[in-house]
Amino acid sequence: MCELLGMSASVPTDICFSFTGLIQRGGSTGPHRDGWGIAFYEGKGYRSFHDPGASADSEIARFIQNYSIKSTNVICHIRKANRGRVCLENTHPFARELWGQTWSFAHNGQLKGIKKWPLTYYRPVGTSDSEHAFCWLLDQIRRRYPAPPSSQKSLWRFVEKQLRLIDDTGVFNVLLSDSKSLYCYCSTRLSWLTRKAPFGNAQLIDADLRVDFSRETQPDDIVSVVATQPLTSDEQWHGMEKGQMSVFQNGVSSYESLRLATSPSGRSRQRIKSC
Amino acid sequence: MCELLGMSASVPTDICFSFTGLIQRGGSTGPHRDGWGIAFYEGKGYRSFHDPGASADSEIARFIQNYSIKSTNVICHIRKANRGRVCLENTHPFARELWGQTWSFAHNGQLKGIKKWPLTYYRPVGTSDSEHAFCWLLDQIRRRYPAPPSSQKSLWRFVEKQLRLIDDTGVFNVLLSDSKSLYCYCSTRLSWLTRKAPFGNAQLIDADLRVDFSRETQPDDIVSVVATQPLTSDEQWHGMEKGQMSVFQNGVSSYESLRLATSPSGRSRQRIKSC
Repeated sequence: MCELLGMSASVPTDICFSFTGLIQRGGSTGPHRDGWGIAFYEGKGYRSFHDPGASADSEIARFIQNYSIKSTNVICHIRKANRGRVCLENTHPFARELWGQTWSFAHNGQLKGIKKWPLTYYRPVGTSDSEHAFCWLLDQIRRRYPAPPSSQKSLWRFVEKQLRLIDDTGVFNVLLSDSKSLYCYCSTRLSWLTRKAPFGNAQLIDADLRVDFSRETQPDDIVSVVATQPLTSDEQWHGMEKGQMSVFQNGVSSYESLRLATSPSGRSRQRIKSC
Repeated sequence: MCELLGMSASVPTDICFSFTGLIQRGGSTGPHRDGWGIAFYEGKGYRSFHDPGASADSEIARFIQNYSIKSTNVICHIRKANRGRVCLENTHPFARELWGQTWSFAHNGQLKGIKKWPLTYYRPVGTSDSEHAFCWLLDQIRRRYPAPPSSQKSLWRFVEKQLRLIDDTGVFNVLLSDSKSLYCYCSTRLSWLTRKAPFGNAQLIDADLRVDFSRETQPDDIVSVVATQPLTSDEQWHGMEKGQMSVFQNGVSSYESLRLATSPSGRSRQRIKSC
């Protein structure tokens, strides 16, 4: 399995603190030493850093840890390989362009039979089941919406439906972004918190590092962080429910949907909690 | 205008020496301070580093300069903006996936009216004429070859034809890679050299740095470097002719074609020099 970290922020914000915690789990405090990657959105711009080695030993990770890239959406992943060999092309996040936007995707879990699902527009470069699932997902979005839909909520609901279909094949904890929204889908395990005024202190679990956010922020800043497991020991993290999808925009949870039960017809029903 | 740097090598090779020379031209020995980017292929794997600032002042560039990423194909670009504002999404190289391969592209020059050329599969994320040209090019390849052609030479000829069509709209010096081949198209200015045994010394023009390649290489290594202008003062660089396309594979020039003249029908004729 792997670990995920995502951020959605109201203003360009660096993720150095959370990233410092996560990368320890890639070979030091955790076993996820089969590559890592981090993707930053700066407006429509996108850049990512990837390394097929262990993040805890990575010079690139150390550089990113100390180099403040300010971003509104971030997706990060440390890998413990199960399908697909350890190599650069199998490191997440994966990225593709749709509608002139860069979409990126990182996955924790395993999917059974997904590689047999047919693909049309997008093809995997590597051999992981995760990249195949991402290509299939973008294929469905592209087919349903050749151009971006006018209703964002329609898009979110459609994406949610596709994520649930993939989730039915295995374990599918996912972070996905289209540069504007951060989609978080919890198959088994994801936690999140929102930091906003009044800002306090936080202590990393995986490194001897403490930060006073009131010194790093402006009063209007809102930043949400999502991770496989809480990264700090003294903040209130919220566990997402199994089958929950949340969409964050500008640091705020803008859409949240739960899978309540399976109907007799075998189709899942969702309840929209808030928008 | 901008400057280009490309490398094709028989074995994974770092480009630290040439890159050190080029980045000086991004704000120190040259005016190309509107962003830069470098893309590395490691097998099918692809990673790139981008920065919208001047390369001569860039902490990421300094990191790459000292961090040896060994690659078989590299494309690098330093930007002096003419079309499209200075921002991350307008930094080259641009990348897209086709046939499960990552294609990347960097351009020096200006193109008139290219943004009116219709696009189908690929859309620009930024606003540069370069990215539009790249999307149009990949559209043509994808339409002509929905799957990779069995004949590599057919692909090279087809790509060449499309590059010439774009070149007819302005100035179009280009480096392009599909992870296997490095395509170099000279509209007005590109130089290249091949380093192989017996290896000698080289002195950068833009920095006080000298290297003895015999200490850095194995006897069978072959490395070709392509650049807008020669990067070293004491090696034999070859100027490409206007309208010349060369394809390098594993460090070796594998295809070379010249535009000799324009026929009465207005169509260009090419002469294949070597394969």
